[in-house]
Amino acid sequence: MELNFRSDNESPAAPAIMAALAEANQGTAWAYAEDPLSERLDRAFSDLFDTPTTVVPVTTGTVANSIALACVTPPWGSIFCHRNAHIVNDEGGAPEFFGHGLRLVPVDGPEGKFTADDLERDISANEGHGIHAYVPSAVSLTQSTESGTVYQPEEISSVCTIATERGMATHLDGARFGNAIAALACHPADVSWKAGIQMMSFGASKNGCLAAEAILFFNCPDLRETAERHRKRSGHLLSKMRYVAAQLLAYIEDDLWLKLAAHANQQAARFSEAVAQHPEASLEYPVHANEVFVKWTAGGFSRLEKVGIQFLAWPGRDDLARFVFSHCTTVEETETLCVRLAESG
Amino acid sequence: MELNFRSDNESPAAPAIMAALAEANQGTAWAYAEDPLSERLDRAFSDLFDTPTTVVPVTTGTVANSIALACVTPPWGSIFCHRNAHIVNDEGGAPEFFGHGLRLVPVDGPEGKFTADDLERDISANEGHGIHAYVPSAVSLTQSTESGTVYQPEEISSVCTIATERGMATHLDGARFGNAIAALACHPADVSWKAGIQMMSFGASKNGCLAAEAILFFNCPDLRETAERHRKRSGHLLSKMRYVAAQLLAYIEDDLWLKLAAHANQQAARFSEAVAQHPEASLEYPVHANEVFVKWTAGGFSRLEKVGIQFLAWPGRDDLARFVFSHCTTVEETETLCVRLAESG
Amino acid sequence: MELNFRSDNESPAAPAIMAALAEANQGTAWAYAEDPLSERLDRAFSDLFDTPTTVVPVTTGTVANSIALACVTPPWGSIFCHRNAHIVNDEGGAPEFFGHGLRLVPVDGPEGKFTADDLERDISANEGHGIHAYVPSAVSLTQSTESGTVYQPEEISSVCTIATERGMATHLDGARFGNAIAALACHPADVSWKAGIQMMSFGASKNGCLAAEAILFFNCPDLRETAERHRKRSGHLLSKMRYVAAQLLAYIEDDLWLKLAAHANQQAARFSEAVAQHPEASLEYPVHANEVFVKWTAGGFSRLEKVGIQFLAWPGRDDLARFVFSHCTTVEETETLCVRLAESG
Amino acid sequence: MELNFRSDNESPAAPAIMAALAEANQGTAWAYAEDPLSERLDRAFSDLFDTPTTVVPVTTGTVANSIALACVTPPWGSIFCHRNAHIVNDEGGAPEFFGHGLRLVPVDGPEGKFTADDLERDISANEGHGIHAYVPSAVSLTQSTESGTVYQPEEISSVCTIATERGMATHLDGARFGNAIAALACHPADVSWKAGIQMMSFGASKNGCLAAEAILFFNCPDLRETAERHRKRSGHLLSKMRYVAAQLLAYIEDDLWLKLAAHANQQAARFSEAVAQHPEASLEYPVHANEVFVKWTAGGFSRLEKVGIQFLAWPGRDDLARFVFSHCTTVEETETLCVRLAESG
Repeated sequence: MELNFRSDNESPAAPAIMAALAEANQGTAWAYAEDPLSERLDRAFSDLFDTPTTVVPVTTGTVANSIALACVTPPWGSIFCHRNAHIVNDEGGAPEFFGHGLRLVPVDGPEGKFTADDLERDISANEGHGIHAYVPSAVSLTQSTESGTVYQPEEISSVCTIATERGMATHLDGARFGNAIAALACHPADVSWKAGIQMMSFGASKNGCLAAEAILFFNCPDLRETAERHRKRSGHLLSKMRYVAAQLLAYIEDDLWLKLAAHANQQAARFSEAVAQHPEASLEYPVHANEVFVKWTAGGFSRLEKVGIQFLAWPGRDDLARFVFSHCTTVEETETLCVRLAESG
Repeated sequence: MELNFRSDNESPAAPAIMAALAEANQGTAWAYAEDPLSERLDRAFSDLFDTPTTVVPVTTGTVANSIALACVTPPWGSIFCHRNAHIVNDEGGAPEFFGHGLRLVPVDGPEGKFTADDLERDISANEGHGIHAYVPSAVSLTQSTESGTVYQPEEISSVCTIATERGMATHLDGARFGNAIAALACHPADVSWKAGIQMMSFGASKNGCLAAEAILFFNCPDLRETAERHRKRSGHLLSKMRYVAAQLLAYIEDDLWLKLAAHANQQAARFSEAVAQHPEASLEYPVHANEVFVKWTAGGFSRLEKVGIQFLAWPGRDDLARFVFSHCTTVEETETLCVRLAESG
Repeated sequence: MELNFRSDNESPAAPAIMAALAEANQGTAWAYAEDPLSERLDRAFSDLFDTPTTVVPVTTGTVANSIALACVTPPWGSIFCHRNAHIVNDEGGAPEFFGHGLRLVPVDGPEGKFTADDLERDISANEGHGIHAYVPSAVSLTQSTESGTVYQPEEISSVCTIATERGMATHLDGARFGNAIAALACHPADVSWKAGIQMMSFGASKNGCLAAEAILFFNCPDLRETAERHRKRSGHLLSKMRYVAAQLLAYIEDDLWLKLAAHANQQAARFSEAVAQHPEASLEYPVHANEVFVKWTAGGFSRLEKVGIQFLAWPGRDDLARFVFSHCTTVEETETLCVRLAESG
Repeated sequence: MELNFRSDNESPAAPAIMAALAEANQGTAWAYAEDPLSERLDRAFSDLFDTPTTVVPVTTGTVANSIALACVTPPWGSIFCHRNAHIVNDEGGAPEFFGHGLRLVPVDGPEGKFTADDLERDISANEGHGIHAYVPSAVSLTQSTESGTVYQPEEISSVCTIATERGMATHLDGARFGNAIAALACHPADVSWKAGIQMMSFGASKNGCLAAEAILFFNCPDLRETAERHRKRSGHLLSKMRYVAAQLLAYIEDDLWLKLAAHANQQAARFSEAVAQHPEASLEYPVHANEVFVKWTAGGFSRLEKVGIQFLAWPGRDDLARFVFSHCTTVEETETLCVRLAESG
C-alpha cells in the first residue's frame, strides 16, 4: 500500500470540518456572503487575533494572496518576496493577473527566509530608474516558509520595519500559518499585526478543510471594498459562501487548527530524527513545522519510492525531496516511513 | 416563518451531493485535479452529452462563463448576448477581467431571448469601423434565460448558424441548464452541440450542489490547455479538486440533476397558475422553467412581504418581482405561497 | 483632382507647427520630458485656462482619453458617455485596456449630446445589482460632439453636477475643442473646469499639429503621477518629448488654435448653407463646428463621389455622410464642393 | 558650455529626417496608415532585409518591444532576456501591460550578453512546476546590447536554435540596431532572420529620427493583424501615420541609418582610446558600438562633471558611468571630452 507524503494538500478534510458542512446545510440562506455564518467571520477572527480584523473568505491560497497583494499594489508596483515563494513559483501568474501586470521581485536568502538587510539590498539595487522602473510597493513573507522553516517574531518585525519606512505594504502568506503558530507556540498576533503585517492569507485547506482560506486585513477595514470587488470580478464570490464560512469557523473553534497542525508538526519532527540518524540522507533545512526536505542520492530516493513511499522530487534537483505531514498522517504511517527509510539505506 | 423564494442560489445542497462529498473524503488523493474522481469527468460528461466532451470543473458560474469566453475571444473581441444576461449584469466585470478588456454587446429581444435576426441586426450596426472597432468574436446564449424562459432547439440552432457563418464562437450559459432540459424533455445534446454550441457552462450550484460548475467543450479538446491556464492563474484550481468532481459526478448520476430540476419546475408551474388566477397580479413572461416573474403593484408586493414571503424585487422596477423555486422547495411551501398570494390580493 | 473632406485627421500640419518643430530641433535636450519646452507646458496651459493646470502630453487622442479615464476609474467602474462617443466606437478597446476591463455605458441623446436627465435615467437603470455590478465612476462628454454639435456651458454644467453629486469623475474629450471654442466664442474655462470638468483631452492633431494632444487636469495635480505611470507603461513617453511640447506650445501661442479652428468652422458653415438650399439633401444635425452631416440618397452621394469629392459614408447608414473641414481647407475648395453638390442634385 | 554625452536619446533629428517630414507635409493624406508613404514600408524593409518583411511602425521602442512580444506570448508565458535588458529595467512594466501579466525572466551573462548555455540553464531551472508555472514562450536579445557590446551572428544563431527547439519565439530589441550593423559591417539579415530572429524592434529614434521605430516580422505576415490590434488599442495608431513612415523611409534610404551610426561609433571608439590611456579610469566593457562604460572613482566623475561634461551615472553604482555618442556628436566635442578626461585625471 502506498503512503502519501507528497503534500498536505492531498489530505482529506477533518471530521469536524465535514460536520460543520453538514450543519450548515440546513434550509435556505441568503447568498453571496449575506448569510449568518459569513457574518460571524469578522468577530471570530478579531477575537482570534485580538485586534479588529476584516475577513474576506475565498477558496484557494492563490486567490487569497493575489487579491491581498492587488489591493495594495498598483500595476506599476513591485512586490518583494523570497525566491522560493509560492507567489513566484506556483501560482501560474495569478498575482500578475489580479495586479494587472505588477512585478514580483525574488529576494535570495538561506532556509527559505530573507532578512531586513536582504530586502534593503535588493530594493536599492532596483533604484535609480525613476519613471522607467517599477515602484517598490509591498513585501510578502511566507510563514511557515516554502522550506519548512519558521520566522521568529523579531525577524518578521525587522523586515516589516524596512517596508513600512519605505511606504510599502506588508503581507504574510499563511498557507501553513497553523503549523507556524503550533511550532512557535506564540499568539497569532505576535507574527502578524504586532510584527507589522497589515494583511495575510490565512490558510485552512492544507490543514483540515476542503477549500477555505481567509484574507485578513488588520486594522485597515477600508480595503474590504477593494478586496470584495476583486473577489467578485474574479468569480470567487460563491453564491453559497456559507459553506466556506462554516469551514473557517469550525477550523478556528476550540483551537482545532492548532491541534491539527501540532499533530502534523510532530510527525515531521519524528521523521526528521530518522533522517538525522540515517547514514546517507540528511536534512536540507532545519525542520520547524510540517515539511521535511531530505537531501539524498537519486538511488536512495528511488529505493524509497519502490517500497511505496510517495513524496515530492524537488523540481530541478535530483538530490532533494520534500516530505509533508498533515493532520491525517497517522503515527503508524510516520513510523512505517521511518522504518522504510532506514531499510532503504 | 419566512419562506424564501429569492433565488435557487440560496438552497442547501441535496442529500445525495452531501453523501458524495463524504464518500470522497476518504484518505489522501493527488491534488490539482489529478485524483481519480476528477479523471472520470471527461468520460461521464461525454456519455451524458453523447459526444467527446472536455470538462474543466470550477466552483462558480461566473468563472465558468468568463473562462469559456476568454478562451475564444481576443481582448479586442466582442461578445453578443442578451441585454439581461448574467454576464452583462451580474458578474462584476469578470468576463472583461478574464478577457483583458473584451466587450459585451447587449442584444435586445423579448422574454429574455434574442433571435438570429436580432443578432444579425446588431452585428451589422457595429460594422464599418475597421481597426477602430471590436471584432465580433462570440455569441453567448442563456438556457434557461434570465427571464425564466427556454430556447427551443431550433431557436438556438438558427442563432448559432449566424455566428458560425461569421466565424464567431458559440457559448451557452447553462447556470439553469437542468431546468431547461427538464422543461424541454429533450436530450441535452439537442440544445447544445447538436444545435451549434461549442462550449457551455454547465451549472450545478443552483440545483443541488454546494459549489460546482463545469466548463464543457464539445469536440474541441484543444481549448483545454487554455482553459486550465486561465483556471490556474485566476486561483480557481483548487488543491482538492476531488470535492468538485464528486459533486458533479453525483449530480449527473442516475439523472439526479433532471429530477431535482423537474421538481423545481413543477413548483414554478403551480405558482404560475396561482398568479394567472389572481385578479391583479400577472405573469411578466411565460413560465418555462423554475422562475416566475410577477407583475403587480408595489402595494401588492409589500403585503406579500409582510406575510413572510421573500422574493427578489427586480432592480429598477417597482412593479416586478422574481420568485424562484428550487430542488428544496416543498410542495407545502409552494401551496403556502399560493395561498398567501391569493390572500394578499 | 480629388478634394478630401473625409476628416480633419487627414490634413497636413500648419506652417507654424512645422516651424516650431524645426526650432525645437537645435542641439541636444534632456529626454523623457525633462527638456525646457516640456517644462513650460504647465504654465502655458494654466495661463490659457486661467487655473492651475497639470499637463501630460501624448501623441494621440485615444491615449489621452484612455489615460485620463483610467486615472479615475477602477477596473470595476463604469464610464457613462454618448452612444456615438469616440471612446465607444473608435478606440479599439483602448479605454478598456488602460482601465483593465472597465466598462463604457452608452447614453442615448439627440444630436450627439445627452442631458443631465438622460444621465440620471441611465445610471438609475443600472442600479440595484450591488457587488455584482459595475460602479458608476465617471462621465465623459465630447466637445465638439461626434455629430458636429457643441455643448453650451450650462449643458455641461448640469451634467457635471449630477456626476459630482454621485461621486463620479468628469472628463471632456476635446479632440475638436478648438472648433467648439471658436464656435462658442467663450473662454476655454467656461466649458471646462468652470462647468465642472476635472480633466480633459485637449486635441491638437486634427487642427494643425502632426501628433500632439494634451491631457489636462484642472486643480488636481495629484493625478499627474498616475497619468505619467500610465503613459510610461503604455509606451507613450517618447524619449524626445520636446517635439510634442513644441507643437503644443506653438498651437496655443497667439490663439493659433482658435484661428485655425475658426477657419475650419467657417468652411463648414458655408457648406451647410449649400446643403440647406439643396432640393434633396438636408442637414442631419445642426452645424455648430467643422463637421457637416448630410442626409441624402445613396445615388446622390454616388454622383458626388464621381466628381472627385471624398467624404465619409457613415457606417451602417447609406443615407448619411460626413464632410469635415479643416484648417487647410481653402475657400476655393469649399466653393468647389458647394458647386459640385448643386450640380449633383 | 555643457557637452551632453548622456544618451543618444537626447540628440536632435538629422537634417534629412526633418526634410522628409517637410516633404510629407503636403496636402491631405488618408489617415491611420492608409497613406502612400505608409504603404511603401513593407517593400522598403523587405528590400533592406532581403526577405518578406511585415512592418508595423510606432513611435517608441518600448511599444515596439511590447507589441512584438505580446504577439507571441500568452499571459501565462515567460520571456527570457538579459538581466540588463531595457524591457526589464526601463519600460515601466510595458511588456507586462501589453502581455496582460506575462513574466520576464532575467538571464545573467557577462558584457550584456548571454549564451545558448545560459539560456538552457535558466529555462531548466524553472521547469517542473507544470500548470503552476509560466510557460517559456519567447527569448529577447538586444543588439547592440545595454552594455554597448554587439552579438556576433553565430552567437545569436545559437541562442535562437535553443529557443526554436523549445517552441519559443525569438525577438531582437534593435533600439541601436544601426550601431550594431555599422560595427559588424554585415548585412542586416545576418543578425536577424538568417540567425533565427522572427521579429524585431528596428530603432530609429536614437539615431537621427524624432520618434520612429518599426516592428518587423520576418516571414510571418500572420502576426500583422495581432500587432495592429495591439497598436490601435494602446493608442499608438496615429491618425497621421504618414509622418512616422516618412521618417523611417528617409532613415533607411541610401544607407543614411548606417552612416549616422558609423559616425557615432567612431566617436565612441575615439573616446574609448582616451579611457584606455587614462591612468585611473578604465573600460567596464569592450566598446563595440556607440556606448562607452567607464569605471572610475566617484571623485574622478565629479571632476569631469564640473568641467561641463554630462554623462549618465549608472544606477546603483558610484564607480560606473555611461557615455553615449550619437549622429550629432561632433568630432570637436569628442576631442574636448577626451581632453577634459585627461585633464581630470
